[in-house]
Amino acid sequence: MFQENLQKIVDNVEGGLAGLLMGFDGIAVESYTRDPAAPGLPSDIQTVGMEFSFILTQVRKAAEALEVGNVQEIAIRADKLSIIIRVLNQDYFLALALGEGGNFGKGRYLLRVVAPKLQAEL
Amino acid sequence: MFQENLQKIVDNVEGGLAGLLMGFDGIAVESYTRDPAAPGLPSDIQTVGMEFSFILTQVRKAAEALEVGNVQEIAIRADKLSIIIRVLNQDYFLALALGEGGNFGKGRYLLRVVAPKLQAEL
Repeated sequence: MFQENLQKIVDNVEGGLAGLLMGFDGIAVESYTRDPAAPGLPSDIQTVGMEFSFILTQVRKAAEALEVGNVQEIAIRADKLSIIIRVLNQDYFLALALGEGGNFGKGRYLLRVVAPKLQAEL
Repeated sequence: MFQENLQKIVDNVEGGLAGLLMGFDGIAVESYTRDPAAPGLPSDIQTVGMEFSFILTQVRKAAEALEVGNVQEIAIRADKLSIIIRVLNQDYFLALALGEGGNFGKGRYLLRVVAPKLQAEL
């Protein structure tokens, strides 16, 4: 079920490389990589997620300090990779990795659509 | 000149609250707040920027570790506030704060358009 939904996101967005469902503790629940041999994904998506789970925790702390409500989404664009992260609940987040020229807007849209389905299962 | 460009961004986007030009060390070069009495901006934009300058440094370190090239943009959406950050160079970034329902896409567009002008001055 998790795997299916991750695949639905990754395979339906131009430039989609991999998807990940992970805890804020950096432990992955499920992941999906479209083509493990594809260039663009620097290492496996779990390593990428672990690098960002710490940052996400910092972002949540900053949002709390600033009293701006819950963090819903974080997007990071680098030259070769974009990561869109959707917070599912207090414990889990969903991440999508896109390669250069990937369809960022569609990626965000798909994460937003799929998030409630995963939230219901967690 | 910096002030003028910040104002151009903030005043031309629906929901624009404030703009900031800051060093990665958390020291502001210039800032502009559309309406200091407006609800939505939790505290002054410099405090917001300082909270995020540390996070930005962490994001750059993660991008370096993952070898995905330079970080260009980071966007964070919380319930009551969105922040779009555009990296200008190794030392400075540009940030735009949007209130609830702000036009995120237009904010990103304006940052991208104005960034080269500021880069040329830094």
